[in-house]
Amino acid sequence: MIVEAAGEVFDEVGYTAASTTEILARSGVTRGALYFHFPSKEAIADAVVAYQTDILVPRPGKVRLQAVIDLTMEYAERLRHDPVLRGAVRLSVEQAAYRKPDSTPYEGLREVVLGLLREARGAGELLPGVDEEEIARLLVGAFTGIQLLSQAATNRADLLPRISVLWRYLLPALAVPGLLTHLDTSPRVRPGATVAEPQGG
Amino acid sequence: MIVEAAGEVFDEVGYTAASTTEILARSGVTRGALYFHFPSKEAIADAVVAYQTDILVPRPGKVRLQAVIDLTMEYAERLRHDPVLRGAVRLSVEQAAYRKPDSTPYEGLREVVLGLLREARGAGELLPGVDEEEIARLLVGAFTGIQLLSQAATNRADLLPRISVLWRYLLPALAVPGLLTHLDTSPRVRPGATVAEPQGG
Repeated sequence: MIVEAAGEVFDEVGYTAASTTEILARSGVTRGALYFHFPSKEAIADAVVAYQTDILVPRPGKVRLQAVIDLTMEYAERLRHDPVLRGAVRLSVEQAAYRKPDSTPYEGLREVVLGLLREARGAGELLPGVDEEEIARLLVGAFTGIQLLSQAATNRADLLPRISVLWRYLLPALAVPGLLTHLDTSPRVRPGATVAEPQGG
Repeated sequence: MIVEAAGEVFDEVGYTAASTTEILARSGVTRGALYFHFPSKEAIADAVVAYQTDILVPRPGKVRLQAVIDLTMEYAERLRHDPVLRGAVRLSVEQAAYRKPDSTPYEGLREVVLGLLREARGAGELLPGVDEEEIARLLVGAFTGIQLLSQAATNRADLLPRISVLWRYLLPALAVPGLLTHLDTSPRVRPGATVAEPQGG
């Protein structure tokens, strides 16, 4: 409840302007309970940042490159509707407002993507010469910027089409030719979610 | 002088924590002169944001796709060494701290890239089916996120290699085959700058 309330507040006003009093009021917990779990506003922010990785649960089965594509589409859709995830992303992008910036907020995302890409490599889906580490880093970086520009331009209404464009132009350098024409990059969420449902309300 | 001083301060502490007193002290101008040019901190920030487009001056000649690649490399290198540009980028990414976010900070960059891509199309450098508008938006978005992650991971020390990776994996979907092998995506700045020199000191 604390993380949910805090995510909303961070999403709306950013770290600096967020007050623990407001977070308390929205979460409905007592001040004692809040400080028991989180000794500082920074600790609350770290928990909200971790949320963006916690919700990523890749599923087994199907083509692994398709699983990566689907994961980005579901994450994009979730970003449009989940204020806690938006708060996590805002804190990640505006890290300097509350901590010395480092890669921590992006590491969990990168590792999930890297794991799927290694499975894709094992399944013979990737072209020779493709470096899974490079692609994982590239995808997390490109996604982060694309969602920022989509937020600025349309409040993320066009985020899925923008992610679809990324895939259309990247895949020819990644996928073996026989697979390429079978991958679905259309801007929509597929059944078989790889992103977990919101926890709580 | 005001824009330079303000860019540095915004780079270091962000919009919210930046004080006009500090900007005044660094710029060496009088308070009267500052308010004559900029009625508010927001107006100063807008001028700093505009700086990132002002320095982009594409040059004629050579292969146009190479010109786009070179532009991103030079911009990346400049970002590593020019605190005013870093301030502009930080304000763009953290827009919500000072204004209602919109595409304005990214529009100038997008238009310069789009112009070069249209020239590339005219010169027969692009594959059929490549949409210049999509690619211009994609490049600005991907670059924005990649530099954010590079900043978090290495204080932008690995920014040029990361941009090189972006190009290596994007170009097969963009360039005609005869051109592809001739494009240089190595992570370095080429002679024939397309980014203007720092103004002033």
